[in-house]
Amino acid sequence: MGKIYENRRILLKTYLTENTFDAVMITNPANVFYYTGFNSDPHERFMALVIDVVGDKTYLFVPALDKEAATLVSDVTNIIPISDEQDPFQVVHESIGVKLKTIGVEAKALSFYRYNNLMDLFPQLHVADVQPFVNAQRKKKSKKEIEYLMKAIDIIEKVMAEGIRKVKIGMTESELTAELEYLMRKFGADGPSFSTIVLSGEKAALPHGSPGERVFRKGDYLLIDMGVVKDGYCSDITRTFIIGEATENQKKIYDIVLQSNQAGINAVCSGVPLKTFDFAARNVIIDSGYGDYFNNRVGHGLGIDVHEEPSIHQNNEELANEGLVFTIEPGIYIPEHGGVRIEDIVYINEDGKSEVLTSFPRQLQVL
Amino acid sequence: MGKIYENRRILLKTYLTENTFDAVMITNPANVFYYTGFNSDPHERFMALVIDVVGDKTYLFVPALDKEAATLVSDVTNIIPISDEQDPFQVVHESIGVKLKTIGVEAKALSFYRYNNLMDLFPQLHVADVQPFVNAQRKKKSKKEIEYLMKAIDIIEKVMAEGIRKVKIGMTESELTAELEYLMRKFGADGPSFSTIVLSGEKAALPHGSPGERVFRKGDYLLIDMGVVKDGYCSDITRTFIIGEATENQKKIYDIVLQSNQAGINAVCSGVPLKTFDFAARNVIIDSGYGDYFNNRVGHGLGIDVHEEPSIHQNNEELANEGLVFTIEPGIYIPEHGGVRIEDIVYINEDGKSEVLTSFPRQLQVL
Repeated sequence: MGKIYENRRILLKTYLTENTFDAVMITNPANVFYYTGFNSDPHERFMALVIDVVGDKTYLFVPALDKEAATLVSDVTNIIPISDEQDPFQVVHESIGVKLKTIGVEAKALSFYRYNNLMDLFPQLHVADVQPFVNAQRKKKSKKEIEYLMKAIDIIEKVMAEGIRKVKIGMTESELTAELEYLMRKFGADGPSFSTIVLSGEKAALPHGSPGERVFRKGDYLLIDMGVVKDGYCSDITRTFIIGEATENQKKIYDIVLQSNQAGINAVCSGVPLKTFDFAARNVIIDSGYGDYFNNRVGHGLGIDVHEEPSIHQNNEELANEGLVFTIEPGIYIPEHGGVRIEDIVYINEDGKSEVLTSFPRQLQVL
Repeated sequence: MGKIYENRRILLKTYLTENTFDAVMITNPANVFYYTGFNSDPHERFMALVIDVVGDKTYLFVPALDKEAATLVSDVTNIIPISDEQDPFQVVHESIGVKLKTIGVEAKALSFYRYNNLMDLFPQLHVADVQPFVNAQRKKKSKKEIEYLMKAIDIIEKVMAEGIRKVKIGMTESELTAELEYLMRKFGADGPSFSTIVLSGEKAALPHGSPGERVFRKGDYLLIDMGVVKDGYCSDITRTFIIGEATENQKKIYDIVLQSNQAGINAVCSGVPLKTFDFAARNVIIDSGYGDYFNNRVGHGLGIDVHEEPSIHQNNEELANEGLVFTIEPGIYIPEHGGVRIEDIVYINEDGKSEVLTSFPRQLQVL
């Protein structure tokens, strides 16, 4: 595994050298994992991979309580612990011991607070954003990463299959969520990749709602949106079911979303702007007269983060490339009535062709 | 409930006026919840409470897909949706429609990226940190907040009591984690407040490790560190057990940590520097000759976030005040041998006296 991380760092170093950076400071935990193999949420503590390109030195700064864990898994040998009572930038300053002129940071990860701290210690420093390069590296998934993603997808699809067998009238959203999260662990997940969404009846109209004490009733929509993390990679899938019996109106809405999902998937290939996929899915919903009930983007990238680049929205002119992995998840959300979302994960393979990584059936199932 | 949020905003507005800010932009989701009642993780999307103090207007900017959910729960009536394809600061700019001179932000929440975007749109703007004031407000818990915390604590203590009855030799850390998280939901939690930690045997030496496939064996340490979120407030407790039979050495180490935990708790009162509590607990461990095996702070605040201010570490000179809630969690972590941590939650009440909010027994239990 060590070579994978080293190779990623070499690409980053090449970029830094070509763009006359002295160093880079990577502080987003997902990126620290990507470049070092050490996967940890430091919460508010400071954790950073610092590469001094001029001196050709690599440092992994970790909270002191994580030193042993980092040493066990990372190929970076120069691991520097920072205790809770220390000033992180002071430690960085003393460790590197050189005058940096230009440092690259992930502008979305570095807080304005840390930026100010950094400038206090290195007043002459020029801080520039390397996020676009890091994101570009992260976006292009390797075969090995697709294998990791498939493990997370396999688990969540087993959870969906087994979980819906437990649904019954009178059960609450919270109870089903407990069963689903239990199954995640049972099937080998390291945990959910985001807050599991189980919404029933009219609550299915909230694209982003939380499971609560609402009881399943006959005729309810049941929207399940969930994912797991396995070995650092995330899955994310949504299926919507009907409990008991579906009305003609529910079947009609479901069918529109299913057609929209299929149109979005069919549009995926390399070489065209990402917005194309959003429009392909969205137009089906607009043409059916439900355009007002679909007010978010059609998808998002996923990998180490459950939401990462690319964002598949109407204004994204970026060209689709080999290696991208993202969701296609159109929905119709009708306030006080309910909603349907169908979400799959699509990969643009080395031939520029789309592969749907999720395989859970998409036809309407009445539970 | 509405009044609670309004009253918090009034205090913030008073601070802003006194410090000649034109406006504030609150972007940390926990703070948005604190001031508006809308509790949501927007992931990478933009969400902000903006208060224009000069015009006396309050705006809640939310991702478009969250508009309905925010409308349902927040007392802020001016809710402005931002679609995925819009530039958030452009929407803020157009909505406020005034020339701001000085804006307060939470410097730890605003990214360098968003800071730069903000400056592009408002080039004359002076951006200053209001984090210390916001944190001070958050730190001082009201009676109502203690009730919320107690709900989260009650749930996790029930989970601990029921969960350890399921422990048996041959079970894996992951399996026990699945049971514990199932029980969290069963007892009414909205979810774990952080990644549940279940570590056995020598793995208990990792203060921050993850549950895996290690199988419980006779004589193992079993360290369980977990918490739940309930109605927006977090709990966090650690207990360490021995499986089967405890050696004299294990009992000795446990006893030192227990004494340290008690010494930390006993030291808590208002009016003294927070570092006092760290030293009180730490000195017990140092005096017993295990000082090298306790290398992190003794505790952290908790409330809406599972880690928030105050930080209880050796250099924190800040004076303890009424209303603080924090953990006392000393530990001894011996690489390749195992570890013990005992974590409780302490509250400094209105009389400046400490109250231990956790009540799960702290005596060594052999399972």
